[in-house]
Amino acid sequence: MGNFVGYQCSVCGKSLRADYKGYTCDSCGGNLNVILDYDHIKKTVKPEDIFASPEKSLWRYLPLLPVQDPGFEGTALHSAGYTPVYKSDKLAKNNGIENLWIKDEGRNPTASFKDRASSILIARAKEISAEIICTASTGNAGAALAGMAAASQWKAVIFAPKTAPQAKIAQLLIFGAQVILVDGNYDSAFDLSVEACEKYGWYCRNTGYNAFTAEGKKTAAFEIWEQIISKRNSEKPLNIFVSVGDGNIISGIHKGFKDLYELGWLPVMPRIFGVQSEKSAAIFNAWAAHTEKITPVSATTIADSISVDLPRDGVRAVRAATQTNGAYIAIPDESIYEGISELGRIGVFAEPAGATAFAGMKKAIAMGIIGEKDDVLVMNTGSGLKDIRSAMIAAGEAPVIAPTMDALEEFLSK
Amino acid sequence: MGNFVGYQCSVCGKSLRADYKGYTCDSCGGNLNVILDYDHIKKTVKPEDIFASPEKSLWRYLPLLPVQDPGFEGTALHSAGYTPVYKSDKLAKNNGIENLWIKDEGRNPTASFKDRASSILIARAKEISAEIICTASTGNAGAALAGMAAASQWKAVIFAPKTAPQAKIAQLLIFGAQVILVDGNYDSAFDLSVEACEKYGWYCRNTGYNAFTAEGKKTAAFEIWEQIISKRNSEKPLNIFVSVGDGNIISGIHKGFKDLYELGWLPVMPRIFGVQSEKSAAIFNAWAAHTEKITPVSATTIADSISVDLPRDGVRAVRAATQTNGAYIAIPDESIYEGISELGRIGVFAEPAGATAFAGMKKAIAMGIIGEKDDVLVMNTGSGLKDIRSAMIAAGEAPVIAPTMDALEEFLSK
Repeated sequence: MGNFVGYQCSVCGKSLRADYKGYTCDSCGGNLNVILDYDHIKKTVKPEDIFASPEKSLWRYLPLLPVQDPGFEGTALHSAGYTPVYKSDKLAKNNGIENLWIKDEGRNPTASFKDRASSILIARAKEISAEIICTASTGNAGAALAGMAAASQWKAVIFAPKTAPQAKIAQLLIFGAQVILVDGNYDSAFDLSVEACEKYGWYCRNTGYNAFTAEGKKTAAFEIWEQIISKRNSEKPLNIFVSVGDGNIISGIHKGFKDLYELGWLPVMPRIFGVQSEKSAAIFNAWAAHTEKITPVSATTIADSISVDLPRDGVRAVRAATQTNGAYIAIPDESIYEGISELGRIGVFAEPAGATAFAGMKKAIAMGIIGEKDDVLVMNTGSGLKDIRSAMIAAGEAPVIAPTMDALEEFLSK
Repeated sequence: MGNFVGYQCSVCGKSLRADYKGYTCDSCGGNLNVILDYDHIKKTVKPEDIFASPEKSLWRYLPLLPVQDPGFEGTALHSAGYTPVYKSDKLAKNNGIENLWIKDEGRNPTASFKDRASSILIARAKEISAEIICTASTGNAGAALAGMAAASQWKAVIFAPKTAPQAKIAQLLIFGAQVILVDGNYDSAFDLSVEACEKYGWYCRNTGYNAFTAEGKKTAAFEIWEQIISKRNSEKPLNIFVSVGDGNIISGIHKGFKDLYELGWLPVMPRIFGVQSEKSAAIFNAWAAHTEKITPVSATTIADSISVDLPRDGVRAVRAATQTNGAYIAIPDESIYEGISELGRIGVFAEPAGATAFAGMKKAIAMGIIGEKDDVLVMNTGSGLKDIRSAMIAAGEAPVIAPTMDALEEFLSK
């Protein structure tokens, strides 16, 4: 079980043993944090050992994970994570700051951040001998589970509302998952998936419910630490912008940095900034009201992977900002399209959620929250190829000419 | 200029100096092969040096390239290539062979093989001080040029027929390329792009015209050599299956292996198998007729990136098979959909062209060309996210149920 020693409830603080069979706290229902044996890790591993690993995936951080290496070398499962970070002097200059990095999660096997969670979940399923993993999802999380399950020849069952885009359903089916569409909304798919897992003994991967999803997502923090922070000559915190839907990605990234800090491997905690669309701002609202109580909204943002009525990991998501001296930013949907265009200009084709984080950075600079000397990293959570419709709105139209040199010259002389 | 010493015409054999300004042979119009200083490379570089490179992109093969490193570290341009190779025991067993690898080019920055060519072309443009690169394309090559140009802040002009899919045009525009749609077909866009390059002094990247595209594409051969061949304990040739449209990818891969063989770094040449759809089989037809003369067809295959009437690199493409004891295979379009499904089952979401190569392998096994003991590598040339419509046909429909346990139980008991 790696260095996994137990859980602690994120709401009431109750400790639970590593062999606890539930998903959430048995006292208050709160989400559980996974606790590692930090003393043992400190004694047996050094950062240099990790940096020298020949493994080119998130499995290079195995000593900091609550699972053992599941095997499946030479498959897509062993190829998730360790995504590139680009440095853009152009975007930095255009936005009035000195250093700006973009971490491109679209380079993951199924083209989104969610492969991190799903590959760790497969490892966990193997350890607890769960033959079938189930989730409710219509988007990136479902594709990631289906893809990682296909890579490892695991069985996946995915519940989705029948109104989900046909293209996204196609991706789930291509990966060979058992896809069951329900005649209802996402919440009914979620509820049915939880019931089905209880009845049939399936392992439930649902985000903001299973404690191990954040343990996969935290590996992005380890990469930011290895790729940027460990090479920076600065005592100032790095400022990380990440889009927020159900709150599990920002919570996972926060957890990763907390692990590193606990180990004494992080001189200064980064500041974490959550960005939501104004049209899906339940966590922003709570943060702005100085509360951890999340009030549901009716989400309508075009950034589908962060369009969430009731965030399932809201409490920890608020804390990711409040505990790191970060903040929440809410942006209008229009600036998502602008963000897609601006990121495209440096060769990064972002999904709307990725552009949301970038738009949030721009607003934070305009608000004076981020200054000229503050180093910034923006997380692009997935590939723009997953949402061509938004790209088409952002891109606009191209000119049409007759196929002659005369027509070309006339056009170019305009 | 790296180890680049000149050109040799692939048709008439004429040698041309490295400072030759044309694109094709000035005697016969044939495509040019780039010649390297193999003696110098042999004296100064060893395979182990390359394998030990910390560079995680195609730039790790710099000593074997005809260009210098263009810089742009920390951008998508320095992140092209070095894609993963998956080994699938399941697909090997299902198809009656012992060892099968899939190289997944969908993991490139713009999600296709073509990033290899475009990143080398940017380096070449920098060396010859060409400020603007131009190409005719509607698909992967255009996206790759636009993406790599955005990463390096180079200027790109792309001509496409106005009938090109809106989604593909959107990707070009997102990357900030100057996109000019012409009221005509691809051939008229090609001809106009060549004329425009001559008139305005733009650098023409057109595939099967510019000698350096194959030099980028050959890096896939170097990776197969490093990732598979150098680690294999076998004196039998590896059998490589690659889909063929205009013929430049297969020619580029062949060139890479010829480079390695010339250097004495390759004990045995791999066998190269070209796969075409029966509905776009101009090169297959020539190979089957034992000629290098390519007769145009009216291509109608659903695999758009290999749908080509007149292949622009046909002669070298035929030789890639004939000179390596390989073959050409033509497959029906129906088996492309089956290939998409079968690859999906191991977590690889392939574009139709990638599934074409896989379908060709299956046919070669059925024909007895490939036997049980023959090791096979299939090249997936791009991500299935680029052609969701084909994926939807391949995937079929998912069942719909009411959101209740009763309905689920009834469905599962069927």
